Amino acid sequence: MKLLEERISKDGLVKEGNVLKVDSFLNHQMDIELFNEMGKEFKRLFGDRPINKILTIEASGIAIAAIAAQYFDVPVVFAKKSQSINLDGSVYSTKIESFTHKKIYDVIVSKKYLSPEDHVLVIDDFLANGCAINGLIELINEAGATIEGVGIAIEKGFQNGGQKLREQGINLHSLAIIDKMDPVEGSITFRQE
Amino acid sequence: MKLLEERISKDGLVKEGNVLKVDSFLNHQMDIELFNEMGKEFKRLFGDRPINKILTIEASGIAIAAIAAQYFDVPVVFAKKSQSINLDGSVYSTKIESFTHKKIYDVIVSKKYLSPEDHVLVIDDFLANGCAINGLIELINEAGATIEGVGIAIEKGFQNGGQKLREQGINLHSLAIIDKMDPVEGSITFRQE
Repeated sequence: MKLLEERISKDGLVKEGNVLKVDSFLNHQMDIELFNEMGKEFKRLFGDRPINKILTIEASGIAIAAIAAQYFDVPVVFAKKSQSINLDGSVYSTKIESFTHKKIYDVIVSKKYLSPEDHVLVIDDFLANGCAINGLIELINEAGATIEGVGIAIEKGFQNGGQKLREQGINLHSLAIIDKMDPVEGSITFRQE
Repeated sequence: MKLLEERISKDGLVKEGNVLKVDSFLNHQMDIELFNEMGKEFKRLFGDRPINKILTIEASGIAIAAIAAQYFDVPVVFAKKSQSINLDGSVYSTKIESFTHKKIYDVIVSKKYLSPEDHVLVIDDFLANGCAINGLIELINEAGATIEGVGIAIEKGFQNGGQKLREQGINLHSLAIIDKMDPVEGSITFRQE
């Protein structure tokens, strides 16, 4: 998606350790107008699927999923990163390792909000090694629901999460795929598709 | 807001310990169509203020803030609950005690995204004792920004957070204020305004 690639080139900061900072428009301050364009693009990419629910994970996937949901006219469920006293005991759960935070989280979704009748589009802001997305897919499988697709804003193509998902036959679309980042030059190379 | 009150009456569950579960439509599964109506109502309530930014806190405030932002045509910043390696060291920070999780969080906003030029609308899903909102107000004051208002989906009027904010002269509007909940009857009494 040209608009997103241009924005990453303009405002993204490449740091040592394969870190891309896009917190000025994507995951701390959020450009909701851009999110609307991303939502339209997700609709173009997944609009042929019988999606009745969008699943994401807190926190930075939530706004992208909520804005996109307007184009699909479906509710959003976000997986939570720790057990809350406000959730029933009856949850699907898995463990996810965070690349960013170097931590392992318990991730849960209430059984009330994922069922075998659900046809789910998974949306998240980043795909790198794929831990978060694999965790969400696990929750969907646990519920017996159908995965209709995975929509990602930015994929780090030089890590193997995306490749593994595509090899599994997952209907994955990333709006921008980065093949190379150079922290010295500050340059970002996008995959041409 | 009639529509929200009706939805709370229909789908909210009152539990012991002053807990109101609205996770079927507000803070786990999210009804984005309802959020759009809430966004329009926030615009009606705060539209006369020179708002250039919406501030919320992860996780359950994010979607409400993002949808509302479309009616104000401004970016959203969400305060983060713990230091991330993807954030610079230059952050505003405070501590917030969570009523739901019985924990104290470090809450941060990057200095890049709050400044003396900002006129901020704070949005969150719940207001009870006011710890989260007071923390966000502290961050705004630390930044020298202006608080134009606080918009809440559900206020627990029987706790004192809202009263204290109003006494401070904060321009606070809650879309639904609950004056009484009965876990035995399952009844919810809303404040008439």
